[in-house]
Formats: sequence, structure tokens, C-alpha cells
Amino acid sequence: MYKLYDYRPSGNGYKVRLLLTQLGLPYEYVEKDILQRETRTPEFLAINPNGRIPVLELEPGITLSESNAILIYLSEGTPFLPTDKLESAYVMQWLFFEQYSHEPYIATSRFLLHYAGKGDQMRDVIEQKREPGYAALVVMEKRLADHPFLVGDRYTIADIALYAYTHVADEGGFDLSGFPGILAWIDRVKSQPNHMLITETHLGQT
Amino acid sequence: MYKLYDYRPSGNGYKVRLLLTQLGLPYEYVEKDILQRETRTPEFLAINPNGRIPVLELEPGITLSESNAILIYLSEGTPFLPTDKLESAYVMQWLFFEQYSHEPYIATSRFLLHYAGKGDQMRDVIEQKREPGYAALVVMEKRLADHPFLVGDRYTIADIALYAYTHVADEGGFDLSGFPGILAWIDRVKSQPNHMLITETHLGQT
Repeated sequence: MYKLYDYRPSGNGYKVRLLLTQLGLPYEYVEKDILQRETRTPEFLAINPNGRIPVLELEPGITLSESNAILIYLSEGTPFLPTDKLESAYVMQWLFFEQYSHEPYIATSRFLLHYAGKGDQMRDVIEQKREPGYAALVVMEKRLADHPFLVGDRYTIADIALYAYTHVADEGGFDLSGFPGILAWIDRVKSQPNHMLITETHLGQT
Repeated sequence: MYKLYDYRPSGNGYKVRLLLTQLGLPYEYVEKDILQRETRTPEFLAINPNGRIPVLELEPGITLSESNAILIYLSEGTPFLPTDKLESAYVMQWLFFEQYSHEPYIATSRFLLHYAGKGDQMRDVIEQKREPGYAALVVMEKRLADHPFLVGDRYTIADIALYAYTHVADEGGFDLSGFPGILAWIDRVKSQPNHMLITETHLGQT
């Protein structure tokens, strides 16, 4: 059985929990509190030298890190990853967009404001994330204004990856009211079978 | 024929140029000077709403952005991307590591110091990138101290992606002398067939 090293409020971890759940794959959940630096212990660095969650243990001693790499691994051969070469390429494009142009602004603002309690101390840092964060939302809106999902006409891991931090962007101080395409897409993602909340470790278990 | 929108000093663009060259794929090269904001014009934003190079035009009107997504697209079915599921997953892991934990520190320091001429103005920003940049190099060294390449025992797109900015890390003020595994790997990458320099747009054409 898979073992997932994760931190409950993490959107990156949530991506993996959501896909595992929607694929019907059971997993053991191991909480690592990043605020307590539990991912920087020698034991955890032996699992992931980069000191980050999520990490998926595929079998004893075999681990995979980077949330979006885990999504690709788990979704291969399933409806969550298109087999069409170009559609698959666009899934990858969105996954890298998420990690480079979206997460560092939207997720990090949420973390500082909502979890680390550093809203005052890091005001300038958070302020600098405002413009690039909204720029990422503009890129998403451009696609979602007239398409149901990010790639093709079906829910894929691209949607899972971008949904994770977009649907809680308000916790980072981002106002989605000017993004009707994103708001409709959020509802569409929420209505997928076996959807779970970011606060859940397993479906129905907060 | 492929058309590559790129900026010559870009390591992200270089990844694509290097792989295209090593795959023997011809391509038209279109320079977009990011210092002149040529990637933020309405015309370019129609090609990539995220306003970044590289962008590969696969055929007229069909474009793909995100350097590492382009590497995956081009390498599928070639020796540059392992077919083994676990090895392929580790390639993805390194590609996301590169964009999240390496590029924002090492590449951005180089850009500010070496190309944008903002070494003085942005001294604090560059200083803050020092520690996470070295942390990324430590993660690479841990692997490369006793392995010839990042994944398996063969040169893959993971090596291309990480090589791009690592081999010019000194231009961002990073000293590689404490990383013997990385230095030996750099030599190993340089010795691959049809290697080209970051300053080249096509093999032998600077």
C-alpha cells in the first residue's frame, strides 16, 4: 500500500490525496508538520533530500517526491492523463506553469498569511506576490473563459494541480470575483466523483 | 519544421536548443529579447499568454510553452526519456525540482547580475537567493557524488534541464568548487554527442 508523507494544509499534498482518492487507491497517511520543521530532520531528508512534502512511498524504500511528478506517475494509463501526445503535452505545460508561475505567489501568500501567521512581518513579501499571482490567474481565466477544463474537454491532473491552490486563493488575499471562468471551473472540479476537501486526509476524514 | 521562440542567454531556451540539436531536429530560431519586453507584446501574448520564452511552434498555430514540458514532448520515444515507469517518474521529479527549487534562485541570480545589470539595485534579493540556491546544489550533489547522471546510468532530459543553469551558476555568484560530483557531471554532460554551448542558437552558430 502506498504511504503518503504530507502536511494537511498543503495544497501540494492535497493534489496527491485527491488523485489517490479519485483513483480509488488506498494509502497510509503520515503527517509531517512543516511548521515544526519535521521535513528537515535527518530521517526525513533521507526520504527526500529536498526536505519537502508530499512524498509518496511506492514500496518500502522507494519514494517519489514533487507533487506534480507524483500526479503524472499515478495517472499514467488512467483517464486523468490524456493519451493524445499534444493533450498530454498541454497537461505538462500547465503542471510546470503551476509550479513556476502560480504556486510561488498564490500558495506562498496563503501560507504566510493563513498558516505561518506572518502577515504583518512579511507584508512587503506578500505585496510583491500580488501582481504575479494575479497574472497567473489571468492566464488561467484566458483558457477557462471558454473551455470547461484546462486541457481538452475533460478533467485531468492539470485541473487537480491548478485547483489545489486556486480554490483557496482567497486565503492568500486573492479576490477571484473578477474571474468568472475560474469560478465556474472551480464548481465543475468540485462536482467530480469522489471529490474531497483540502482539509481531508481521506474522503470524509478531516 | 519547428519554430523556436527564444532568447539567446536563456538557460530555459538552451535546454530546448540542446535537445533539438542532439535529436537532429532542424528548427527555425526566432529571437525575442526579454530585456526589451518582446515577450509581453500583444502578438507574443497570443502565442503564450504567460509571456515567456521558450515557446516551440509544433506546426503553424500550434504552440507549446514551458521549457520542461517541451523537453518531455520532444524526448518521448527517444533515449533521452526512459521508458521504465519509475525512471521516467524520477526524470519528472528532477524537472519539477529544477523549476521550483533551482531555477528561481540560481537562474534568477544570474539574470539579475549578468544580464539585467541589477546587481547593485537588487543586492538584497540576490542575497536572499543564496541559501536556497546552494540548498538545491546540495540536493544535486547528493545524487551526483556517486552516480554518473541524475536518473539511471544514462544522460536524459533531467540532465539537460539541470545542466542549463547549473553550468553557468558562477555567473549568478554561486561557487561550484565544493561540489565535486556536480563538476564531474558537468564534464560528462559536455562530452555528450552534439553538445552545444548556451551561447549558440544552432550547433556552431553563436
